Amino acid sequence: MDDLKINKRLIMTPGPVSVDPRVSQAMSNSILGQFDYEFVEIMNETMELIRQSFLTTNQWSFPIDGTSRSGLEAVISSIVKPGDEVLVPIIGRFGYLFTELVTRAGGIVHNIHKPMGEVFAQEEIIAALDKYQPSVLAIVHGETSTGRLQPIDKIGQACKERGIFSVVDAVATYQGAVIPVDKWQLDAVVGGAQKCLSIPSGITPITFNERFSEEINKRKRVELGIRSGETTEQDHFIRSNYLDLTQLQDYWSPKRLNHHTEATTAIYGLNVGLKLALSEGVEARAQRHEYHHRGLKAALEALGLDIFGDSDNEMKMVICVNIPEGIDDAAFRDGLLRNYGIEIAGSFGDLSGKIWRIGLMGYAVNKQNILTFLSVFSLYLSQQGVTGIDPTKAMDTLINYYDNH
Amino acid sequence: MDDLKINKRLIMTPGPVSVDPRVSQAMSNSILGQFDYEFVEIMNETMELIRQSFLTTNQWSFPIDGTSRSGLEAVISSIVKPGDEVLVPIIGRFGYLFTELVTRAGGIVHNIHKPMGEVFAQEEIIAALDKYQPSVLAIVHGETSTGRLQPIDKIGQACKERGIFSVVDAVATYQGAVIPVDKWQLDAVVGGAQKCLSIPSGITPITFNERFSEEINKRKRVELGIRSGETTEQDHFIRSNYLDLTQLQDYWSPKRLNHHTEATTAIYGLNVGLKLALSEGVEARAQRHEYHHRGLKAALEALGLDIFGDSDNEMKMVICVNIPEGIDDAAFRDGLLRNYGIEIAGSFGDLSGKIWRIGLMGYAVNKQNILTFLSVFSLYLSQQGVTGIDPTKAMDTLINYYDNH
Repeated sequence: MDDLKINKRLIMTPGPVSVDPRVSQAMSNSILGQFDYEFVEIMNETMELIRQSFLTTNQWSFPIDGTSRSGLEAVISSIVKPGDEVLVPIIGRFGYLFTELVTRAGGIVHNIHKPMGEVFAQEEIIAALDKYQPSVLAIVHGETSTGRLQPIDKIGQACKERGIFSVVDAVATYQGAVIPVDKWQLDAVVGGAQKCLSIPSGITPITFNERFSEEINKRKRVELGIRSGETTEQDHFIRSNYLDLTQLQDYWSPKRLNHHTEATTAIYGLNVGLKLALSEGVEARAQRHEYHHRGLKAALEALGLDIFGDSDNEMKMVICVNIPEGIDDAAFRDGLLRNYGIEIAGSFGDLSGKIWRIGLMGYAVNKQNILTFLSVFSLYLSQQGVTGIDPTKAMDTLINYYDNH
Repeated sequence: MDDLKINKRLIMTPGPVSVDPRVSQAMSNSILGQFDYEFVEIMNETMELIRQSFLTTNQWSFPIDGTSRSGLEAVISSIVKPGDEVLVPIIGRFGYLFTELVTRAGGIVHNIHKPMGEVFAQEEIIAALDKYQPSVLAIVHGETSTGRLQPIDKIGQACKERGIFSVVDAVATYQGAVIPVDKWQLDAVVGGAQKCLSIPSGITPITFNERFSEEINKRKRVELGIRSGETTEQDHFIRSNYLDLTQLQDYWSPKRLNHHTEATTAIYGLNVGLKLALSEGVEARAQRHEYHHRGLKAALEALGLDIFGDSDNEMKMVICVNIPEGIDDAAFRDGLLRNYGIEIAGSFGDLSGKIWRIGLMGYAVNKQNILTFLSVFSLYLSQQGVTGIDPTKAMDTLINYYDNH
């Protein structure tokens, strides 16, 4: 058994991405008990930071102790009862994940589809709400599998007017785009850790409003062993205990009702990661992502690569390019990683082997990293025999962009 | 928003407890992608370390990305189908948690009870297996709410002979007692992080055998979005996706089928935490817990406190004492924490306000800490007006114990 040795990487994927050393330092602080008064203060402060990050006043803004998927499942399994109908628009893999989570919760899914690389006009989604009259809409904001940003600014209000609950997967866009939860009238939104927030995977900030809270609390069941007074049996109690948002509300409120043992160091990391993001500013951080995205995309086009997907609706935290003819996806990425320590991502399903996803997420998105990435990537493509590309022109484009913007 | 500042503590609770700085250092290493070849090596090594920690050859030995409760729920919700009957012996709070998890999974629970502070003779449990003929036995090994160690060495074989699956909550005993999973023929065992292993809460090592694997795979459902070929619908598919052990098997096997985004730094911590535990030795580590338990218990008796519970079946990683007459539980513990940075625990339910639980778990269990704890605790008790106690005699007892053992 050797000591743990972690080699250096330049991670240019849609996550997990590199973490600010200030977050790592925070996470190496010593442990506090979960009901230690100083830890409770940190928990309260962290809730307030989550509120600010989502631009919301929602009381219910707290983390789930698990990866992003656990946050999505917590929201879906708490709001979807067996037999409930749910509309899930599909523009890529993560719409299928929502479909899966709803199905496992016993819900009935209505999917609408767009070809990979496209998004829905919001009017199309609203028309589907009227057609299917679901109780819940579950929608992906940033579909990283295709690199598309689904517009959702009108969706929350349309749902509210129809008595439908809106649930948004903002895992990939959180802290890389502005998501004004209250302004957009979204009922429940799930953020992500290991993407634009740039803290380690394993904890997931979520927020939901009072309307959503009232609905899930119709299913509330206080667990055996900590009940006091009458039992609270419900026909359709939430099937998970770990991901039961109503129990987590009791834990993340002045009641501090015992549930799980909070993941101490993950909270430290979330706390400091959010402070760093908020001190940069939600709007400024989104602009930073957009700024570097524009430069690198122009450079990749100058290199001679084809950019994948509808350019009017692209996520600013990932660039999807078609893999050049004659290049083996897995072998190229493996070579890039083993020789240079640089990681880019492939995609899923029908897009597997066809596109690369180059991530621009959070902490590591800066001029030095992107210039370095472009140098290595373009020369390695050339060295691997891709013809018709021009690394010098690409670098010219990027340097000019940075010099003039 | 202030910087995160974490003050020093001497945590003497049944968790979360202090972490070895070598674990914290490991966790502050930089991020690797979840399918990075070097990270895959770390994942594989971590599985092997988990096997060794459980004294098992089970292939299926991997962590769940969540707190201990997520590990318990993963096992229960994967093995218990709606309508399945499950025997859950109750000797304290955590038996109720199993009961809750089984109920939420749709199972039918048969409880047998012992008064708080006692344990079952294994023959009593085996008789209940014959009486109720359940498909699963879910049993707590170390019941921290009462400080009792439930003997289980004959339980696994008895279950196997009857075609019953044995599921063990070893969260509190893992790496503080020897749990020879294969020798005891246990089907699924859940360990803990933030207790005797002494790594931060948020990741949970589990192990299960082939017999258990075959049973849960009757319920397997490959999720939408990553299926290839035929669908795999089952009548009774597992209701959770995040905690679906069959999907986690695909992730934690050479298939590396995409599921959650592994909690990178938690894996670093688990890897190094296990290396430290195994280099001490599972047996030696258990003996260290027993050694300090014996000394501190004798000293607390010499102080004049009553030890709670059946002394033949005590956990060696916690000492339960009756709270002296006239002392307010919460106020005393709060004073100990705020004045000295020392944390001890109360208990739950009927034992709340009646006993203190003094934890002796993992990294911080050493002579210096225990001598310091006893000094502060016994003098503070005296200063708070408890009569009939003798701090000097207590300290004499402990120093003599350490000098002579």
